[in-house]
Amino acid sequence: MPFFYSGKQLKSLNMSQLNSLCEDLRQKILSTVLKNGGHLSSNLGAVELTVALHYVFDFPEDKVIFDVGHQCYAHKLLTGRAEKFDTLRKKGGISGFPKREESEFDCYNTGHAGTSVSAALGIAKARDISGENFNVIAVIGDGSFNNGLIYEAFNSLRLLNTNILVILNDNGMSISPTVGSMHEYLEFLSENDEHVAKRNKHANIFDRFGFKYDGVYDGNNLEQLIQKLTEIKERLKHESVILHILTKKGKGYEFCEEDPEATHGISVSSSDNVSTEYSKVFGETLCDLAKDNKNIVAVTAAMTSSLGLGEFFEKYPQRSVDVGICEEHATILCASMATEGLKPYYAVYSTFLQRSFDEIMIDICSQNLPVTLCIDRAGVSGADGETHQGVFDLSFLSMIPNLTIAVPKDINEFKAMLKFSADFNYPLAIRYPRAGKRVFKVQSKIVRGKWEELSSNENADVAIIACGERAVTDALVAMQILEERNINVKVINARFVKPIDDEMLASLKQKHIVTVEDNMLAGGLGSLINTFYANKDKIIKNFAYPDEFITHGSVAELMNDYKITGKYIAEYIINAIR
Amino acid sequence: MPFFYSGKQLKSLNMSQLNSLCEDLRQKILSTVLKNGGHLSSNLGAVELTVALHYVFDFPEDKVIFDVGHQCYAHKLLTGRAEKFDTLRKKGGISGFPKREESEFDCYNTGHAGTSVSAALGIAKARDISGENFNVIAVIGDGSFNNGLIYEAFNSLRLLNTNILVILNDNGMSISPTVGSMHEYLEFLSENDEHVAKRNKHANIFDRFGFKYDGVYDGNNLEQLIQKLTEIKERLKHESVILHILTKKGKGYEFCEEDPEATHGISVSSSDNVSTEYSKVFGETLCDLAKDNKNIVAVTAAMTSSLGLGEFFEKYPQRSVDVGICEEHATILCASMATEGLKPYYAVYSTFLQRSFDEIMIDICSQNLPVTLCIDRAGVSGADGETHQGVFDLSFLSMIPNLTIAVPKDINEFKAMLKFSADFNYPLAIRYPRAGKRVFKVQSKIVRGKWEELSSNENADVAIIACGERAVTDALVAMQILEERNINVKVINARFVKPIDDEMLASLKQKHIVTVEDNMLAGGLGSLINTFYANKDKIIKNFAYPDEFITHGSVAELMNDYKITGKYIAEYIINAIR
Repeated sequence: MPFFYSGKQLKSLNMSQLNSLCEDLRQKILSTVLKNGGHLSSNLGAVELTVALHYVFDFPEDKVIFDVGHQCYAHKLLTGRAEKFDTLRKKGGISGFPKREESEFDCYNTGHAGTSVSAALGIAKARDISGENFNVIAVIGDGSFNNGLIYEAFNSLRLLNTNILVILNDNGMSISPTVGSMHEYLEFLSENDEHVAKRNKHANIFDRFGFKYDGVYDGNNLEQLIQKLTEIKERLKHESVILHILTKKGKGYEFCEEDPEATHGISVSSSDNVSTEYSKVFGETLCDLAKDNKNIVAVTAAMTSSLGLGEFFEKYPQRSVDVGICEEHATILCASMATEGLKPYYAVYSTFLQRSFDEIMIDICSQNLPVTLCIDRAGVSGADGETHQGVFDLSFLSMIPNLTIAVPKDINEFKAMLKFSADFNYPLAIRYPRAGKRVFKVQSKIVRGKWEELSSNENADVAIIACGERAVTDALVAMQILEERNINVKVINARFVKPIDDEMLASLKQKHIVTVEDNMLAGGLGSLINTFYANKDKIIKNFAYPDEFITHGSVAELMNDYKITGKYIAEYIINAIR
Repeated sequence: MPFFYSGKQLKSLNMSQLNSLCEDLRQKILSTVLKNGGHLSSNLGAVELTVALHYVFDFPEDKVIFDVGHQCYAHKLLTGRAEKFDTLRKKGGISGFPKREESEFDCYNTGHAGTSVSAALGIAKARDISGENFNVIAVIGDGSFNNGLIYEAFNSLRLLNTNILVILNDNGMSISPTVGSMHEYLEFLSENDEHVAKRNKHANIFDRFGFKYDGVYDGNNLEQLIQKLTEIKERLKHESVILHILTKKGKGYEFCEEDPEATHGISVSSSDNVSTEYSKVFGETLCDLAKDNKNIVAVTAAMTSSLGLGEFFEKYPQRSVDVGICEEHATILCASMATEGLKPYYAVYSTFLQRSFDEIMIDICSQNLPVTLCIDRAGVSGADGETHQGVFDLSFLSMIPNLTIAVPKDINEFKAMLKFSADFNYPLAIRYPRAGKRVFKVQSKIVRGKWEELSSNENADVAIIACGERAVTDALVAMQILEERNINVKVINARFVKPIDDEMLASLKQKHIVTVEDNMLAGGLGSLINTFYANKDKIIKNFAYPDEFITHGSVAELMNDYKITGKYIAEYIINAIR
């Protein structure tokens, strides 16, 4: 027996066999995620849908795009990746997200929310232009459905003059419960199932955009799904359909169904996360600051608890805003609230902040408004891979005028920076990783643009300039290794990447400069220092990520692969000053 | 008599005086724009609306945000800026867009589309939190209304639990005619005025989001506008309203009403634009290439003709896509069409491409797809100011793995690069300014990542490395000045900013290196070269824009202010090698 049926095999199963396949898939997903970490509840909820899709449609000729991609595990298991599934999210193993490189059944890579309908339209349009004939399906959750991209895509369906199927997999949750009027409207639609005739007469929102609306309100019922999809497959020849299905996030396991927020993503214990979480420190400190400062407001885009803001939202509901997965809108809300004297803190993962690049520049920074960006999961973020690494933020932020960028070396400095931010009346970004492991001895006062010497050896041959806990730790590990060989280095904590500490840089006597950061080389700390010294006689070595996308693996593995560790820094220095 | 009535004076006028005020405003706008350039038709269409707003509401206590801001001239004339209006868009004069720095009547700076409703919500939310009491109004055109930000903002109205007025100024045009289903729906609403009762009963889309829909379908009728706004002002105490008004773009002048696309923005002759337009060359060359390559498709976001694609869209309608002002969606369409073997060209202004940063990275580049970004209006773009300068693109693109960045030194090289792109199967960006002025003698074959020597003086003391027509011109002007003083320089055309030409850089014997670019220093060409030479004994001087937002002025004025000219380069070199 094949481990998991796929393709034609699957199509020959009867309903009872198909249901039992669903149970097998669910079991395999659970056991793997408990071991490897990953998205759990969302994958469990989409099992029946995935089996129904594979039963009714013909992949890879037909194309399915999973929005965000955090519900593609059953699809992977059904498309030849069952035997390797134990390597899920492991370095060199299969990715937790759809990957074209991995399988012809993955037609479009996803990772950030809201792209699936646009991608489905592009693929369908290409099909029409090329005179081909296959079906294109976007599977999107109700959380992603809040994103503005959806509107842009829906709005263009008619002018693209093509047919696609959008399956709205509605489980009432993003990571947090889904918010917003669209979701209320979806509830209205699904609750009024008995009034289908009436509803269809008074065209609903989706009809306006050229989609025929249909629903399967028990979206974990395989038989109903298969029946409806079979019917829709015919209709796709002449129209676009949005199929609204209600699924149970975490379906099949009580502990998941009861707490889908906590079981959305599962982390397994590893050196990556057995430690203090910056998000926790962030939430606690912001609550403290908000006591004395009534102007402080907290804004998030659908990730309240994972950003550490659960307590703040409970304590200060009037000053808390979660707009759903709308990073751009959230950024403008912060900027505009600041024009009226409020003090907004926008908490967001580094990788998702990329969506706000234009708004950070135009809305916040060109108006020079006191918004604080609290950028979590900065640096390599590990097992989620290419689409989730937070290694670009220093680069895309450092080019923006009026913005100050702070990078704490540990959680104590992070707290101090948050306190500093409360009285700082200009745009500020603070970037930090998920996990904190160390607390350093030196803790000097935070002054904008001023760095800190962690070891003040004036006779040092080399100055190591590092920012952020991981890089500063590496620098100090290198220092220790070098001390054993009687090589003296000076270690500097570049706690502001913007502005850089010109004065300290100008005063450094060392000819050899080493920079270390958990960010891309282009545009990051090292690049700024290279520019500062462009007309000076220095020998500079940059430790940073090179010009390539960084795949999945543990943080430690990735930093080692890219040689951003104390050992490699020490090795370089030993050779350089020889 | 005050030149233009404002505040309380305006409120004391009778209807006949108000109508005559509208005529005066219109006259002043026309005469100024014909002299200074600027947005014409959109401003003419919004005169009555602006007068009505000032008559009914109390600014600056009440707040009005103009989306994009290209319809704020009447507002400026009514708020103390009439006497300085002759300086519109001139260096040191008043801006063509709302500016908080300029007047307390401008509460929020705009420039890019779709931000006004989010900003209005943020300001209203801040008002509620602070326990204040004023009205907040967003004025948005139907073109901007296609942008996904609108959906994100509308979707959050109820959860923000606040009241605003959105005025949808519908003239049927972006710069090009407005496309998309939302616009068709707006037509449906306004055409069915007689069925108001019925329409209200079967809640329309806006009701779903918590807005009460209302309309004034002759939006240039001052009396009707005043009456409706007076009524709405009361309703804003307890609800949010969207007021749909139909206005005539270019209202009042036949030549504008008849060709609102051509009179959307007026350019006045200056050294900035008496020359070949890159957009024209782009359109012609792409048409040529498309003859032989059936896979070529062209995608734009509401700017077909200003990007030079009018002819392409006429010749190849099946392979042409204009999705409206949806830069992100357009980017994903390109990526997804490329997965199916098409060869998409996405043409866009540099400043608006900022909206696509995340999609360029995740959708195009992390999938390594053969999409060509054709980036127009790169470098300083002149009179539109801070929100429209194209000086960030080299920086935000150069950090993205898998992307090749080409920068032509003149229109001939631009043509060659477009031809090169047709056979290049990876992500590619080509950035170019609006106007071309020169054609250089040297025209060598385009090879990815290979630079070109424009003067091969091996005994030169200094190497000048420049990219793009403006910077290369500066470099050659500097060379000429220096030749007169018997100083020899080598000039290199860095026609690929990514990858840089490592081999050529490694082979340069000159100790003195000068870099020149029409881009920010951070992350641009100079920064990449500084990093290349970080461990080499070179003296490098970077000519680029510093870390500040660049205000309005002519291209020549701005480049001179920032000392990016041949004269300054020559001066630096004379001092440096002394």
